[in-house]
Amino acid sequence: MDMSDDATPRPLVLGALIFDGVEPLDLFGPLEMWMNLGPDLVSVSLIAETTEPVAVATVGWPFELAPRLLPHYDFEHAPALDIILVPGGVGTLREVDNPRLIEWLSSRGADAEITTSVCTGAQLLAQAGLLDDRSATTNKAFFSYVAGFGERTDWQRSARWVDSGSVATSSGVSAGIDLSLALIARLFGQERAEQIAAGTEYAWHRDPAHDPFADQIDIAMPFLESLQSA
Amino acid sequence: MDMSDDATPRPLVLGALIFDGVEPLDLFGPLEMWMNLGPDLVSVSLIAETTEPVAVATVGWPFELAPRLLPHYDFEHAPALDIILVPGGVGTLREVDNPRLIEWLSSRGADAEITTSVCTGAQLLAQAGLLDDRSATTNKAFFSYVAGFGERTDWQRSARWVDSGSVATSSGVSAGIDLSLALIARLFGQERAEQIAAGTEYAWHRDPAHDPFADQIDIAMPFLESLQSA
Repeated sequence: MDMSDDATPRPLVLGALIFDGVEPLDLFGPLEMWMNLGPDLVSVSLIAETTEPVAVATVGWPFELAPRLLPHYDFEHAPALDIILVPGGVGTLREVDNPRLIEWLSSRGADAEITTSVCTGAQLLAQAGLLDDRSATTNKAFFSYVAGFGERTDWQRSARWVDSGSVATSSGVSAGIDLSLALIARLFGQERAEQIAAGTEYAWHRDPAHDPFADQIDIAMPFLESLQSA
Repeated sequence: MDMSDDATPRPLVLGALIFDGVEPLDLFGPLEMWMNLGPDLVSVSLIAETTEPVAVATVGWPFELAPRLLPHYDFEHAPALDIILVPGGVGTLREVDNPRLIEWLSSRGADAEITTSVCTGAQLLAQAGLLDDRSATTNKAFFSYVAGFGERTDWQRSARWVDSGSVATSSGVSAGIDLSLALIARLFGQERAEQIAAGTEYAWHRDPAHDPFADQIDIAMPFLESLQSA
C-alpha cells in the first residue's frame, strides 16, 4: 500500500548541508536513495555557507587534496526546505563552533518537515537545539563526544537509527542509507522504498533497533582526543 | 595477518573516472572505503575528459539540476595510476560511444595494477577491451545490455563481484562497496579492511558468490529500451 499523502505538494524540497570535511558516504548514500525518487517527487540541492567548492573527505585528508563539490546555494539563498539532510564527518568537529551554520540550521530546522542526520551530523543538530527533549542516536565510536552537545537529549546507545517524527538521526556512516530508506517509506510508501533498495542492490537493514555496531561505544574517543590536542 | 607487500611504493595512486550521469553511490561508496586508508596509503583523484564540473545523478535527473563535482585532472594531465575506479550510472550509456574516454580507459587500464568497475561501469571496461577473455559481472537488472558489449567475456549472472586479478567488476551500485573492501583486504590485509568496514558501520558482504539480487536479471531491460527510444 502506498502511504504517500496526495495532499502534500510535490516535489518535496530536500537540502543537504555540506561543509569541508563532510564524509563521502554520509552524504551520497542517502542522496542515492532520495534521488532515485526522481526530480518530480523530490528536488535535491547542496547548501553551504558560501558557494565555494566544498571538500568531501574522511579523517586525515588535507581538504585541498580531497574531491570537491559545488554547492547549489549559500545559506542566504537556499529555498524553503521540506527535508534537511545533515551528514557527519570530521568537519562537524569544526562546524559545531560555526555560529552562522548553527544559526542557519536552528532556524531552518524549526520550519522543515524533517531534519535528518547521519553519524556526527547529530552533533550539529544537538548544538542547534533540534534534539532537545528528543530521542536520538549517532556514530557509536564517537558516542559520548557527540552526546555531550545534547544534554537534554535521550541518547540511544544501541540503535541503527531513531525516528522521532520531525527529527530523525542515524548511527554512523552507512546507517544513513538505512534511515533514508525508512523516511522514503514513511513519505512515499514501503513499496517505493523496497524498489529503490532493490534497484540499488542494497541489502536494507529495516529494523531501527538492530544495531550491529553498538559494541563500538566510544572506541574512537582516544583517537578523537589525539586529534583535538594536535 | 597483514598481507600488504612492503616492496610496493605507497601511496598507491587511485583515479576515479567520472562523467555526467555518474551514479552517486557507485562513486562515493568505494571512495569512502579507499579514502579511509588515508593519504599515506592511497592517493585519490577524480579524472574526467575535461576539468569542467561533472553532474552526479541517478536516472531521470537533468544534469543541470544535479550535484556537481570538480575533477582533479583531465585525461591528458592525469598521473600514472595504480588503481582505476570506474563507477556506473546512466552516463555510461552515452560514454560507451565516447572514443576519447574509451581510448583513455583502454590505454590506462593496460598499465594499471587494478581496474575496477561498479554496476554499468563494466560496460565501459568491456568497450575498452579490458574484459576480453575474463570473467566479469555487472548490475543484474541491466545484465544482457551490458553483456552485449563484451562478447569475449565470461559474464557471471550470479555474483556480488568478480575479482580476476588486474580487473575486478562488481554487481549494481551498493556491490561496489563490498568489492572495494575486498580489494583493500587483498592489498592491505584483511584486518585493515575489517577495521574500515566497522569504522563506517558497514555490514560488509564478504562472499563474492552470494548474490541476493541475481533474481533481478534483465528486469530493467524494458525501461532501458524506453530510455533509448525517447
